[in-house]
Amino acid sequence: DEPLKIADREFRSRLILGTGKWRSNEEMLAALEASGCEMVTVALRRIDFDDPKSRSILEVIDWTKYQILPNTAGCRTAEEAIRVARLARAMGLSNWVKLEVIPDPKYLLPDPIGTLEAAKVLVKEGFVVLPYINQDPVLAKQLEEIGCATVMPLASPIGSGQGLPDFRWIQIIVEQASVPVIVDAGIGAPSDAALAMELGADACLINTAIAQAGDPVKMARAMRLAIEAGRLCYLAGRIPKKPYASASSPLEGVVR
Amino acid sequence: DEPLKIADREFRSRLILGTGKWRSNEEMLAALEASGCEMVTVALRRIDFDDPKSRSILEVIDWTKYQILPNTAGCRTAEEAIRVARLARAMGLSNWVKLEVIPDPKYLLPDPIGTLEAAKVLVKEGFVVLPYINQDPVLAKQLEEIGCATVMPLASPIGSGQGLPDFRWIQIIVEQASVPVIVDAGIGAPSDAALAMELGADACLINTAIAQAGDPVKMARAMRLAIEAGRLCYLAGRIPKKPYASASSPLEGVVR
Amino acid sequence: DEPLKIADREFRSRLILGTGKWRSNEEMLAALEASGCEMVTVALRRIDFDDPKSRSILEVIDWTKYQILPNTAGCRTAEEAIRVARLARAMGLSNWVKLEVIPDPKYLLPDPIGTLEAAKVLVKEGFVVLPYINQDPVLAKQLEEIGCATVMPLASPIGSGQGLPDFRWIQIIVEQASVPVIVDAGIGAPSDAALAMELGADACLINTAIAQAGDPVKMARAMRLAIEAGRLCYLAGRIPKKPYASASSPLEGVVR
Amino acid sequence: DEPLKIADREFRSRLILGTGKWRSNEEMLAALEASGCEMVTVALRRIDFDDPKSRSILEVIDWTKYQILPNTAGCRTAEEAIRVARLARAMGLSNWVKLEVIPDPKYLLPDPIGTLEAAKVLVKEGFVVLPYINQDPVLAKQLEEIGCATVMPLASPIGSGQGLPDFRWIQIIVEQASVPVIVDAGIGAPSDAALAMELGADACLINTAIAQAGDPVKMARAMRLAIEAGRLCYLAGRIPKKPYASASSPLEGVVR
Repeated sequence: DEPLKIADREFRSRLILGTGKWRSNEEMLAALEASGCEMVTVALRRIDFDDPKSRSILEVIDWTKYQILPNTAGCRTAEEAIRVARLARAMGLSNWVKLEVIPDPKYLLPDPIGTLEAAKVLVKEGFVVLPYINQDPVLAKQLEEIGCATVMPLASPIGSGQGLPDFRWIQIIVEQASVPVIVDAGIGAPSDAALAMELGADACLINTAIAQAGDPVKMARAMRLAIEAGRLCYLAGRIPKKPYASASSPLEGVVR
Repeated sequence: DEPLKIADREFRSRLILGTGKWRSNEEMLAALEASGCEMVTVALRRIDFDDPKSRSILEVIDWTKYQILPNTAGCRTAEEAIRVARLARAMGLSNWVKLEVIPDPKYLLPDPIGTLEAAKVLVKEGFVVLPYINQDPVLAKQLEEIGCATVMPLASPIGSGQGLPDFRWIQIIVEQASVPVIVDAGIGAPSDAALAMELGADACLINTAIAQAGDPVKMARAMRLAIEAGRLCYLAGRIPKKPYASASSPLEGVVR
Repeated sequence: DEPLKIADREFRSRLILGTGKWRSNEEMLAALEASGCEMVTVALRRIDFDDPKSRSILEVIDWTKYQILPNTAGCRTAEEAIRVARLARAMGLSNWVKLEVIPDPKYLLPDPIGTLEAAKVLVKEGFVVLPYINQDPVLAKQLEEIGCATVMPLASPIGSGQGLPDFRWIQIIVEQASVPVIVDAGIGAPSDAALAMELGADACLINTAIAQAGDPVKMARAMRLAIEAGRLCYLAGRIPKKPYASASSPLEGVVR
Repeated sequence: DEPLKIADREFRSRLILGTGKWRSNEEMLAALEASGCEMVTVALRRIDFDDPKSRSILEVIDWTKYQILPNTAGCRTAEEAIRVARLARAMGLSNWVKLEVIPDPKYLLPDPIGTLEAAKVLVKEGFVVLPYINQDPVLAKQLEEIGCATVMPLASPIGSGQGLPDFRWIQIIVEQASVPVIVDAGIGAPSDAALAMELGADACLINTAIAQAGDPVKMARAMRLAIEAGRLCYLAGRIPKKPYASASSPLEGVVR
């Protein structure tokens, strides 16, 4: 299989992890290791750049092993997201940004207009922009056209673990995309991650489903295997779904 | 993880393959290898015990590497299935039998009454019986109670690749079972196999989805990884599904 | 539309109601009226034939307006169900019986073997037998062949209100049946009832979803309309499901 | 039940029909009558205001009986949609507009950005704007806030008949809306329409599923009943979905 290519970087792993909601740093580090991931996202809003203590997440993880993907979680408007991304770059963190513009605290659904606005500004300023979006194929295409490096449609609301009960929209987004499609948010189990990859998604970003699992390290390994399984299926070509049965052991001509 | 225990045997692999519908023996052998499976099912009705030529499937596979699981595919009644199983044991093949009593050629759905009848007879005669059934928790319990070694509920009609659109019945069967539950038939993609295992199924039997995939060897590997992923998830404990979102990066107390 | 014909009787209504779980007799009677139903099922086990007081359900409803359909709810074995049905006939109640053989108290799922056994005996004794079954097309066919007047597959576990998340099995049962198919148990909302009828079911039996609704009379009317809507759709012929869109207002040739 | 109130008008019917894809004018008129609808949408792009012949749809229907709802189907950009809406008002047709901005010809999915832009302009110019949108709760809220009279999220792609396989988003839109929510596009059968109404949608717009049904008049009546059934259910209050069964005829204390 070819590596996943985002902007000018290549990744062998198609699984991206997050740094929120872990029970301990030890568990997080062991799970990162078990997941085989090469990129990890960090909420910029949780880093107080003026307070050395709060920067712990930057010190806990060995960033020579993982590429950091700063995200704008907690930003409600395009302006906030732009400001936070600029600050992170100014501090030398990265010019990559997982763009989240989320006005709604209950379902944490992204704002399509604000996301497109912020993406336009950040792309022009040279950021590598990975926008988090609803399952909207038209918006996905527009974000690609203005220069985003990927699109990141959700499977379900963040942290809900509902998976991908309706995969038609991801299918359309994949069909129309020329940039990588990363399914982000809502994945609850390996079967969800496998399904996303079978549909042709290029990668998955998973946080809560691993961090809050009974055994996060085991779950990290499960997700890694599922992502690989789904990708292999996509490459191998699955059988079509048929309304009727079709004997595994056809018995035409068998003497009865 | 503990090995899968069926009757008096133990298996490290939780994936069972079939010998029907392959494009070539070479492809089949390579896929068996890639799948890591330890047990392979063979349709007895396709073997003409009087004709050396037709016994090829018995010669093609190295049965020192795989345990043979004879099945009664093509048998429409309990009597037929009993006769075929007895013949196979008499020929020295095995005293294990995957019991299929299938009167209907279109959907290949099993007969609950005939299956229970045949199972009773075969169990009494010392067979290790693995019955193929519809998603019927009451029947599953009855088969267990008369001494079957496993129950093998279908995911969907044989060869349909429809997967597990409604997993409630498998969940109930697993909840009530004291013998291994092997999901058999209808699995179309790795996500289906992973889901079955996440629900607590002990193993999956897959044939068409691998044999008829674009690249069966790749798909065999995909299924192997998916089974392992689903099993790990079951052991690790998945997060619950929630109706609302739950921030991956909680921002309570963050200064705005 | 033709009337629904069961055994030698004809019904204009395709909705059957039950007498369990109502908050008051007044509410039940008003809902029966609003539903337009012509047949009502009564649990024989709840009638103490020796105690005049407990026979209230027989006195509450005006049985000149509704046909009584005695059921064997609460019977765990074929023997129990047969005994109860015989007693009801002996007491002059009816020779119709909704046959329930339910060993399992948690999911209230029917026993396929016990149901077939009891049905055989009761049919021979001249009963009009309407058996309650799981979604098993092979069993449905067998019950039809031994002379049952209908088959009554469940949508979901009794009282669960889960509806019909997987309608493939009902579809197959309908396709193969020559007797009326009555979907019984699990219907939670009008959309579930409409769906069952769209698939070609001949009628629905609904109890909990009406009796326990916030406003049972309103819900009875809703179910009546939904049954009629689903039936009309079945007769009218629905459009096929298509993977792509298809403009409602085609604009080929429109000048831009 | 209260009437449906949109802007300053009230409707007793909660079903809106379209004028595309009918096999004949006679069939359309009979179906409109059978549906009980009070509002009918017309694609402005199909009317050539300079050519009296092409205006037939305006002459075929008796617009004293139905309120006309002009739509901008076929408009790919905000500008086009605005222009068409203005022209329709200038011609005296209506100041109501069902706003469609659809750049994509394959899935006919709406452009969230273009729709919001056009809606802003048209609302300011005094139009009553009913925007067609994807299932995006954030966009729905924004359209409401700038003064749209309703929001019209799709069930599935236009004309696909796929219904509402994933109703979570409509549920969230309904929960957050203060203006009427009209489910538009993708409804294939009465059960889909009933489901939309059960979730709390205020109305449905249906075209292809009726116009292309085997018998459109029968289907129009089916949809009418289903809409009423779903609405009644919403008002009555459905039972919750439970994972386990719950006996319709509880038998506690019954003598065995």
